[in-house]
Amino acid sequence: MAMPPLRLLQHIRTHCPPPSSPMLLRVRKPSFARSSVEGFISLMAKYTTGGSGSPKLLFRQLFEKDSSTYTYLLADVGHPDKPALLVDPVDKTVERDLTFVKELGLKLIYAMNTHVHADHVTGTALIKGMVPGVQSVISKASNARADLFVEHGDKIHFGNLFLEVRATPGHTLGCVTYVTGDGSDQPQPRMAFTGDALLIHGCGRTDFQGGSSDQLYNSVHSQIFTLPKDTLLYPAHDYKGFTVTTVEEELSHNPRLTKDKETFKNIMENLKLAYPKMIDVAVPANMVCGFQDAIKKPSEALAS
Amino acid sequence: MAMPPLRLLQHIRTHCPPPSSPMLLRVRKPSFARSSVEGFISLMAKYTTGGSGSPKLLFRQLFEKDSSTYTYLLADVGHPDKPALLVDPVDKTVERDLTFVKELGLKLIYAMNTHVHADHVTGTALIKGMVPGVQSVISKASNARADLFVEHGDKIHFGNLFLEVRATPGHTLGCVTYVTGDGSDQPQPRMAFTGDALLIHGCGRTDFQGGSSDQLYNSVHSQIFTLPKDTLLYPAHDYKGFTVTTVEEELSHNPRLTKDKETFKNIMENLKLAYPKMIDVAVPANMVCGFQDAIKKPSEALAS
Repeated sequence: MAMPPLRLLQHIRTHCPPPSSPMLLRVRKPSFARSSVEGFISLMAKYTTGGSGSPKLLFRQLFEKDSSTYTYLLADVGHPDKPALLVDPVDKTVERDLTFVKELGLKLIYAMNTHVHADHVTGTALIKGMVPGVQSVISKASNARADLFVEHGDKIHFGNLFLEVRATPGHTLGCVTYVTGDGSDQPQPRMAFTGDALLIHGCGRTDFQGGSSDQLYNSVHSQIFTLPKDTLLYPAHDYKGFTVTTVEEELSHNPRLTKDKETFKNIMENLKLAYPKMIDVAVPANMVCGFQDAIKKPSEALAS
Repeated sequence: MAMPPLRLLQHIRTHCPPPSSPMLLRVRKPSFARSSVEGFISLMAKYTTGGSGSPKLLFRQLFEKDSSTYTYLLADVGHPDKPALLVDPVDKTVERDLTFVKELGLKLIYAMNTHVHADHVTGTALIKGMVPGVQSVISKASNARADLFVEHGDKIHFGNLFLEVRATPGHTLGCVTYVTGDGSDQPQPRMAFTGDALLIHGCGRTDFQGGSSDQLYNSVHSQIFTLPKDTLLYPAHDYKGFTVTTVEEELSHNPRLTKDKETFKNIMENLKLAYPKMIDVAVPANMVCGFQDAIKKPSEALAS
């Protein structure tokens, strides 16, 4: 299902805006050259040094009904540039998101994913096509294509605020959780964008995309449950209309992850879930940054 | 479409739990005897005096997909009783809401509505049937049935926190906005639950239920736009996936209410909206606290 390199190159040439930085240009290479973390941090310097104004977080949770996906908008509106990022944008709601970003006078710099989603197509490619200079971000471990790759411990700066990257594999092998910074000038309580690693009173399935119930248990317990108890946890989805939870709430009420590891593994191995209906469409698209006509159409996928 | 008193009494006898307080008993009378605001405040005294622990707000925004309604849960978890209230509960999601309240160990004391909704049936009656002692709250100006009636300027205490009532008619004649308290021991920034008076970059229609575009303009400008600019505004609905806005954002970006009054009135009078499809079901039910079999069935309503 992977796209042949030549076809991918054609898509990149068709869809990408004119290069606004050497980083973007590198993504255009058919060799899939990827930016290093060093380059990433260096590029961010213009936002992290010399900025006037105290950091002030603008935060919005946005919902896409069909896939019950949450997209998160964060910006430092205390910074003159009002640099902003989107976590887990969805293709169907890109126009809404970008209209909103424009209305608020924000400068969108990153379109980030917590992982390679299997239930919707990321809005990353559309955003890059519509807003020159935006860079896509995903974990190095995902093996997906993006402008910038992050690893455990990296910091993603936007203005005088930052997100910390925590590797939380288990739903997929490349899942990360983005956590707002720890410090007196960073938002309190902290906020964590958990993707599908931890859902509200639940968690993502572990039977596809390099998933592992053993690994997910370790990830959540070591990287999310160790955050301060009042940390606000924002997942990539909720199907019942919940919008947020906390570490304290999940430590007490998560019906799966409050169990011991063997019980958890047993639960996850006996969920008997249906084959994910969007996986054959979404994963190939999301592996290449969400270029939608680089993938099978739904009818083709269903026929395969 | 109003229910005959005898039939209503039968419904109340069938659905209401055994009386847990004289206030509830009064509601059972076929004469629709209503509690006074004085009684309301007096009843709350047990929560507002002598409570140990600093107030600490637990806040959750909850979503009902079919009607795109937001329900809000607020509780003072710093108080030993953890008293809680629900704003704009929906019948379809009552089980979810009550399960959640129970899991968190909260004591639900109020099921409140911002107004008589026309697009969904309130969950109030179901909640009262399932949790003895919960009292329904609505504005006196709504002319709907409830245990407790509020007017502009009233304070609704839960533990050491409170909501202030602001009359914001215009979408309906009985709309109110509930605003978190003003004070050093109350949540900052303030939060306002605006119902349909102010939606995110929009507002409720003004062509039914005693609506008035002139009145709505005055309400929003005098009661909502005068709140501190960082006040978080939580509406009863959003249809595009937005979850919250602020006074500052609406002052700059509301496409209707940033206009002068005459332009606003002209916009509202030319919306050419369809007849509300749920109005003949929802309004009669909500006028009597959401007793669902006291109203026309959808097929009857459509035939009328």
